[in-house]
Amino acid sequence: MQNNIVDKEVNMLRKLASAFPRHPLQINQLLQSDAEIIDLTTSDFKFLVLKTDGLHEEISEKLYEDPYLIGWMAVTVTMSDMAAVGSKPLGLLLGLQLPRQNNENWLTKFQQGINEACAAYGVSILGGDTNFCSTLSVSTTGVGTISKGKPLLRKGMVPGEHLYATGKLGLGSAFAYARYFDDSIKVSYQPLARLKESKLIRDFASACMDTSDGLFPALSVLSEINSIGIQLTTPLHEILHDDVLPVFQLAGIPSWMFLAGPHGEYELLFTIPVERQQAFEQACIGENWQPVYLGKIIPGKMVHFIIGSINIECQPATVANLFSEANGDIPLYFELLKQQHKYWSQS
Amino acid sequence: MQNNIVDKEVNMLRKLASAFPRHPLQINQLLQSDAEIIDLTTSDFKFLVLKTDGLHEEISEKLYEDPYLIGWMAVTVTMSDMAAVGSKPLGLLLGLQLPRQNNENWLTKFQQGINEACAAYGVSILGGDTNFCSTLSVSTTGVGTISKGKPLLRKGMVPGEHLYATGKLGLGSAFAYARYFDDSIKVSYQPLARLKESKLIRDFASACMDTSDGLFPALSVLSEINSIGIQLTTPLHEILHDDVLPVFQLAGIPSWMFLAGPHGEYELLFTIPVERQQAFEQACIGENWQPVYLGKIIPGKMVHFIIGSINIECQPATVANLFSEANGDIPLYFELLKQQHKYWSQS
Repeated sequence: MQNNIVDKEVNMLRKLASAFPRHPLQINQLLQSDAEIIDLTTSDFKFLVLKTDGLHEEISEKLYEDPYLIGWMAVTVTMSDMAAVGSKPLGLLLGLQLPRQNNENWLTKFQQGINEACAAYGVSILGGDTNFCSTLSVSTTGVGTISKGKPLLRKGMVPGEHLYATGKLGLGSAFAYARYFDDSIKVSYQPLARLKESKLIRDFASACMDTSDGLFPALSVLSEINSIGIQLTTPLHEILHDDVLPVFQLAGIPSWMFLAGPHGEYELLFTIPVERQQAFEQACIGENWQPVYLGKIIPGKMVHFIIGSINIECQPATVANLFSEANGDIPLYFELLKQQHKYWSQS
Repeated sequence: MQNNIVDKEVNMLRKLASAFPRHPLQINQLLQSDAEIIDLTTSDFKFLVLKTDGLHEEISEKLYEDPYLIGWMAVTVTMSDMAAVGSKPLGLLLGLQLPRQNNENWLTKFQQGINEACAAYGVSILGGDTNFCSTLSVSTTGVGTISKGKPLLRKGMVPGEHLYATGKLGLGSAFAYARYFDDSIKVSYQPLARLKESKLIRDFASACMDTSDGLFPALSVLSEINSIGIQLTTPLHEILHDDVLPVFQLAGIPSWMFLAGPHGEYELLFTIPVERQQAFEQACIGENWQPVYLGKIIPGKMVHFIIGSINIECQPATVANLFSEANGDIPLYFELLKQQHKYWSQS
């Protein structure tokens, strides 16, 4: 009996490891080496890019339950960071802690999510470490390179520059709202890390960050790091993702709440200096792509935006910190969001 | 109250992240970028080396409770893999899941263990991801490079070659025995990844693997990958670490049990072809270092060794699999080891 359990686990591990896509430049096969070795003799690059990230609260809070989505997101979270710095990803290492009771069907779907994300991004699983434990936990380390030019940092934004996003926003919050508060609403959530767009953006942008935690948390970090303010000139409902609008209308939730975090949509936020704006927009047309214009970088440390007919000026952290003020309690967080809206509406 | 908890966590995270040693070639400061960026324009290397590993069972089974040891080992486990492939490590990324109830003293000692290990290996913390959750879990991703020559793999051993270890063995098991069965015995356990010795070994060895899981589990993998057998000609008690001997004598445990795994001592096992043996041993003398001679690689798939006056010939997996046959139950594992010894003694 015990032997059967052990064999089953060993078989699961071998099946898991052997079915991942491998990198053509990786010289060691499975088990053949104590570490993963990538041949870079034919490569020419200036910067090595690394990022460890994980899915923890998303799993423990049951925001993600679908094994395909968990696999897809495990890859996407680090690939989005690779995109944000303008790097070309090689692949990733997986750190998995799997519950013993997961069945084969669960594992197959999880692996499918990982493999289809890897295929979408053209990357490989370079290695990993899998353990069995009581609760599921997934972390990934993304590895990439930058061959030419400078990396894009979060730092580098200055007043006067234009702020864009790679796509419309709010899908992460709409998905969370539907999961937690109204399961009659179906929100399709499977973000694609913006690696393709990043290749164009890095030639024009002064700074970049992804919206893994949502718009306001990103603005809060960018404001702090760059000592800048942000004027969101586009009305907020116009920057909401099309699939957010039914939730927005059905649930009657103010548009800014979909942008408050902490569950984002993995778009890129980036700034374009005034003198490069025309060339940037021309290049976007050439790529048959239209980024979403958000507004401008301004002096100060405040974010300005419009709710209905009210002009709001607040510290971006005012919104970004509500979730941690609720200590991660989701109904309480929703309550704090509503209180904040009431406060703004009455002032 | 909630705000205080949040502030405390944020402060802990900032304190943790800011007190780690940073790499001089890392171009982004803390928070300044979505990913960690290493400038390699002045570097010249052929291979990138990566490894994700973690401390999971060691923590859940309370083998490691001292926060300094947990920090030290988190770094050492991946640095040992960097050594096994003959690479020069740059640093590592940390994936931490910390329980909320850890106090500041715990965190300070944990960080001290990480920092002193980094200093011992001359490496930096390149980045990381920290979350709070119910149970402690630590994983690290080691990053290194190989500039010249070929990487050392586990694969490459052929019959006739000589098998060595970088040091005497069994300390991992002796430490575990003292922790689980006899706390009156003090075994000092703080292995140093063999990066220094690896620089010499890689010029002579045909293959290499670390003993992170102990000698027999390593022999089992090496036997399988290389389709070889192993003749351990040195009597097993002569290859036991000096600090194992008191446990060996006090507890009356047969020497081979200290080599059965699964908790190893992070030495390197490596093979030297006959024609290079003299030059290798000369080079060792030049470095004022003496590796431990274990025996020879032989045809077949069996491991041969001597217990007292009995010649044992068995599949290395016979010993290596006992822990998983016990399904990780430590008293049962010890029982299975004793049964195996009885079986050999009577046959």
